[in-house]
Amino acid sequence: MGKRIPIVEKILSANDRLATQNRARLEQAGVVALNLMASPGAGKTSLIEHTIRGLHGELRLAVVDGDVATSIDADRAAAAGARAVQINTGGECHLDAVMLQGALNELPLEEIDLLIVENVGNLICPASFQLGTHKSVLIASVPEGDDKPYKYPGMYRGVEALVINKIDLLPYVSFDMDYFRRGVEVLNPGLVTFPLSCRTGEGLQAWLAWVRDLVAGVRAKRDA
Amino acid sequence: MGKRIPIVEKILSANDRLATQNRARLEQAGVVALNLMASPGAGKTSLIEHTIRGLHGELRLAVVDGDVATSIDADRAAAAGARAVQINTGGECHLDAVMLQGALNELPLEEIDLLIVENVGNLICPASFQLGTHKSVLIASVPEGDDKPYKYPGMYRGVEALVINKIDLLPYVSFDMDYFRRGVEVLNPGLVTFPLSCRTGEGLQAWLAWVRDLVAGVRAKRDA
Repeated sequence: MGKRIPIVEKILSANDRLATQNRARLEQAGVVALNLMASPGAGKTSLIEHTIRGLHGELRLAVVDGDVATSIDADRAAAAGARAVQINTGGECHLDAVMLQGALNELPLEEIDLLIVENVGNLICPASFQLGTHKSVLIASVPEGDDKPYKYPGMYRGVEALVINKIDLLPYVSFDMDYFRRGVEVLNPGLVTFPLSCRTGEGLQAWLAWVRDLVAGVRAKRDA
Repeated sequence: MGKRIPIVEKILSANDRLATQNRARLEQAGVVALNLMASPGAGKTSLIEHTIRGLHGELRLAVVDGDVATSIDADRAAAAGARAVQINTGGECHLDAVMLQGALNELPLEEIDLLIVENVGNLICPASFQLGTHKSVLIASVPEGDDKPYKYPGMYRGVEALVINKIDLLPYVSFDMDYFRRGVEVLNPGLVTFPLSCRTGEGLQAWLAWVRDLVAGVRAKRDA
């Protein structure tokens, strides 16, 4: 490994400085931002669609979608009624603060209340890169299995909320919710969790309430 | 980005040289090796368990398990009856040829017919690192959704076989098999695929037959 770690630390530190700039820019414009992370196919885009529709008329939403390729996700967010910017990372396995900076340039920030950044589908790499968002949210998915907190501790440790999606599939797969929750609790004690199903709609109201409270809380702090 | 790309190319080239050494070592010992890749929770370990049990008494199996943390997967492979070595990558998001080289040192290669390398759960990074195995196999999973070939083209392009796991969940999720297969066909024309369910056992025999034929084919070529 030799000289590798110092170089990586330097890149991360440059990224963190840019993340701080992104955060200042968001705050100045009054935008509250979420960094949504998950494995491929855990339901990031579906949750975003439900969030856009569920908060329609209350909050002005925008979405930044990170993917290795295609604009499928941004197209879905736009169809659901939000402003959407797609970032294609090429081969890159995560979003970083530079990419978000570029996406922010494409958005009329003064006209946005809530920005959801949909990170690249990956349970490892995105955890290492701050973007400047207010909260990091992880989506776990029932069919992924109950051992994921144990196997991907970095991701579970670094988030401020956890959505457990696809609970409608619980009858059809082996998923021990107690074992899963014990793993989460060790890594991230007291983490707020939202078991829900984007397919049936069960549990979505609690998630939407959390998002509403978050936006109101950040604003109250700013205006205080 | 500046000087970054040349450095990355140098690392990959060093990795490829080591992969070639790994391959020579495997061939000399008469071991056929698979590199099994997938998203977190697509069913890599379950397929390995079924492969170990399905080929019991026919082929001597060993498993090298790559994970960010824990030895859950190697423990499962060992419980199913194979020799197993766990590689914990720390934060690393993929296995590389150096890691496999270290794992090969832990195995009595002369006593092994088939080695399955279970890569880290990740649909992006592992595709860039050759290990020296004979074939790369990707497991897709029905609840992940049908758009994954379009969104993770690098992974779908680089494999020699595709398992479509969890077909027992097809009645409970939105998954358009034709759309999925069209995406695969564009990236990897004629790719051999195995729709199956590790839960019900449906489709497993075709997969086991492919593994048997692969081992026999590599041996016939060696002995010719």
